[in-house]
Amino acid sequence: MLSRKDLLGIEDLSRDEIVDILDTADSLQEVSTRPIKKVPTLRGKTIINLFFEASTRTRTSFEIAGKRLTADVVNVSLSTSSVSKGETLIDTARTLDAMAADCVVIRHSASGAPHILSKLTKASIINAGDGAHEHPTQALLDAFTIRQRKKRMEGLKVAIIGDIAHSRVARSNIHLLTKFKSHVWVCSAPTLMPVDVDKIVCENREFLHATNSMDEALADADVVMMLRVQFERMNESFFPSVREYFRYFGLSRRRVERAKPDVIIMHPGPMNRGVEIATDVADGPYSVILDQVSSGVAVRMSVLYLLLGAV
Amino acid sequence: MLSRKDLLGIEDLSRDEIVDILDTADSLQEVSTRPIKKVPTLRGKTIINLFFEASTRTRTSFEIAGKRLTADVVNVSLSTSSVSKGETLIDTARTLDAMAADCVVIRHSASGAPHILSKLTKASIINAGDGAHEHPTQALLDAFTIRQRKKRMEGLKVAIIGDIAHSRVARSNIHLLTKFKSHVWVCSAPTLMPVDVDKIVCENREFLHATNSMDEALADADVVMMLRVQFERMNESFFPSVREYFRYFGLSRRRVERAKPDVIIMHPGPMNRGVEIATDVADGPYSVILDQVSSGVAVRMSVLYLLLGAV
Amino acid sequence: MLSRKDLLGIEDLSRDEIVDILDTADSLQEVSTRPIKKVPTLRGKTIINLFFEASTRTRTSFEIAGKRLTADVVNVSLSTSSVSKGETLIDTARTLDAMAADCVVIRHSASGAPHILSKLTKASIINAGDGAHEHPTQALLDAFTIRQRKKRMEGLKVAIIGDIAHSRVARSNIHLLTKFKSHVWVCSAPTLMPVDVDKIVCENREFLHATNSMDEALADADVVMMLRVQFERMNESFFPSVREYFRYFGLSRRRVERAKPDVIIMHPGPMNRGVEIATDVADGPYSVILDQVSSGVAVRMSVLYLLLGAV
Repeated sequence: MLSRKDLLGIEDLSRDEIVDILDTADSLQEVSTRPIKKVPTLRGKTIINLFFEASTRTRTSFEIAGKRLTADVVNVSLSTSSVSKGETLIDTARTLDAMAADCVVIRHSASGAPHILSKLTKASIINAGDGAHEHPTQALLDAFTIRQRKKRMEGLKVAIIGDIAHSRVARSNIHLLTKFKSHVWVCSAPTLMPVDVDKIVCENREFLHATNSMDEALADADVVMMLRVQFERMNESFFPSVREYFRYFGLSRRRVERAKPDVIIMHPGPMNRGVEIATDVADGPYSVILDQVSSGVAVRMSVLYLLLGAV
Repeated sequence: MLSRKDLLGIEDLSRDEIVDILDTADSLQEVSTRPIKKVPTLRGKTIINLFFEASTRTRTSFEIAGKRLTADVVNVSLSTSSVSKGETLIDTARTLDAMAADCVVIRHSASGAPHILSKLTKASIINAGDGAHEHPTQALLDAFTIRQRKKRMEGLKVAIIGDIAHSRVARSNIHLLTKFKSHVWVCSAPTLMPVDVDKIVCENREFLHATNSMDEALADADVVMMLRVQFERMNESFFPSVREYFRYFGLSRRRVERAKPDVIIMHPGPMNRGVEIATDVADGPYSVILDQVSSGVAVRMSVLYLLLGAV
Repeated sequence: MLSRKDLLGIEDLSRDEIVDILDTADSLQEVSTRPIKKVPTLRGKTIINLFFEASTRTRTSFEIAGKRLTADVVNVSLSTSSVSKGETLIDTARTLDAMAADCVVIRHSASGAPHILSKLTKASIINAGDGAHEHPTQALLDAFTIRQRKKRMEGLKVAIIGDIAHSRVARSNIHLLTKFKSHVWVCSAPTLMPVDVDKIVCENREFLHATNSMDEALADADVVMMLRVQFERMNESFFPSVREYFRYFGLSRRRVERAKPDVIIMHPGPMNRGVEIATDVADGPYSVILDQVSSGVAVRMSVLYLLLGAV
């Protein structure tokens, strides 16, 4: 079990804790293959999915994970705009706590929102994505998928390609993979790279590398993670056109050839086919994108179990 | 049990399969009359209600059906517009499948969407309405209601009146009723009739008749099905006004007199009272409109059970 | 148990019924403190949350209450606008009844909507707020909170301050507290006071007092209930500015001093901090605002149990 109340980010997790989460996910993944996909572990626990940004995929994954553990899951979707008119995030958190929620899974556009909640609640807080900060269960499910395929998380070359500056997925993965001494190559257009990539805090800083060259990032990579182009956050000041984007930073079959012969291709979804990734790559033999989705349910079951179910 | 993975339409169901679904619904309908309205049949199964068009009635009916069978039901509402910005229907389907959903109930504005899904998923796909194509559980619940009242589905005269051209309800009912050699009279304004009504594919083609005369359709009918006027799909090119619509194609008490003395009046809901049906008819002695709603829960329990629960 | 089908308002509840609800809530509150927060009392019951106005707090409270009693809870959110285009409230009610719902929890902008439903359904109807009319479970949870703190509901001085004219919370609380012979002082700006406050119907009419002076309302009060300023219902014709509002009718720490030394401060939430209540008061030692939230789950479990679970 985890000796912590919340899962707020990868940054403050130890390697032992990460391994514990993945090992538990290993055994819980089997539940989803049974005819009766359900264990009574979290019976009588109340989990709130508190989503200030729409996310079908992540919300559904947490909801399924909770229900397979027999928890009661309650969805609360709020728009940040309605909240600004109404009560504060703090009051929302305290309210859910007063209803004796055991866990609040929160997605919010503001970095640090889950941390504010965690100080105010007895309920466990799980960060399901906060601004451009962290998305820890995404990095954990990515690690779970990598470990299943590569049998290790150490000493790999992992290329993360896309909008590094705005990506919480990138940030959480950097934290996790450098903890395990895998080499992370972040790659993007200069306009989409954090100005001070050298100053990204992470363990084993010498394992983080930045480049604007996709060829350099891909060369002999064991793992390639493509990030979703966030059209909604982007505008022409970042990049001239979708066609241009694909030409410079899209993953085509030809480009995959630069990576190791047993490379695995990952994407957190939802994909923009033909923008950051070619369809034949997304559906091709190296893609483990659907494994990531399955891993997501297992890893979220694991996190819920370790935070709420341990006796 | 059904020896098929999906329920995509009535067209490809055999008479035996339809009878099997209705017989099972007969026995499951009793569950909803118990103090404890629940059987453990689908415990540990995951059902996704994937609705790209809002439909309180159908979604609620499926959700209640699933929960009375003890399944875990997860609602996913997506607007087609957001989907066009984001991931493809295909990716959504694969994602839900990777989460080990046992069943996806899909409503979509595009004809054929459920068929695309069915080829990509291990999950059972239930078509809850696809464009102007089919809405099979509606036709099954209509048949269930007819069979309860008339003790047969053969040799009846059934009038279906309204926007035949755009109605998936009409299409599924035509397929079902002609399979059982009941005479189906479709009736609408010329502008709302498919141009090639003679070319509607169905079994026992000689049992399908078309007319623009409501009197002809109603004469000695055993069953009258009124279709909802879809204001959102219609514009003035189809019909001059609501008042005109009711005058020519609305079901008034006087018009009901042309039908058999034991006629039953049906409507898939939601009704536009005073447009396609008069309030005194909707609430009158011949109306079985609320029976249809009850039948809907029973038939959907039956379909879920036969697709997911058979051992 | 309650010998009634519905909970439509406080007005027609007897003192014995109210005490019965609160006593049952007393014993059910313990369930939410257990590791397994669940009793099987309402297994196999179907509860519909039918919300025509968004209300995260009330909907979530009812959903959690239902699930802790093991009921199946189905959420239906409708906008009044879509309903006006579609089916009538009456048809919606009959439809849910035909699906064999055991209980419909309804919030609606029209006063009396739950009463219309109750006449048409076998299902129990719980009013979760109807226009400016009643919000009975709010008054019950307020009474529950008061009784826990004051050990009685009789002979107290209770100040209710804010938009009395439009507040269903005020109305339900007036009914409840005067039934128990507590003195209720309603206080607001003249523009926000019902024109005929003297004609508000309630038992023991001599226990209801109205004033425009906050000092008079607060003097030696045992309980202060602040109402939410409903910006969405208000416009400048009611009050010049937020700053002005707080100056005249906001609850500051200084003002609290006029009340009894053991006063309790209540608010139904969500709060507008700095408008009707100062932050240091909301979070201060007299505030029982979060107790109200906890009480809400217990009281709603009690009402659901007494309406649906009694044998």
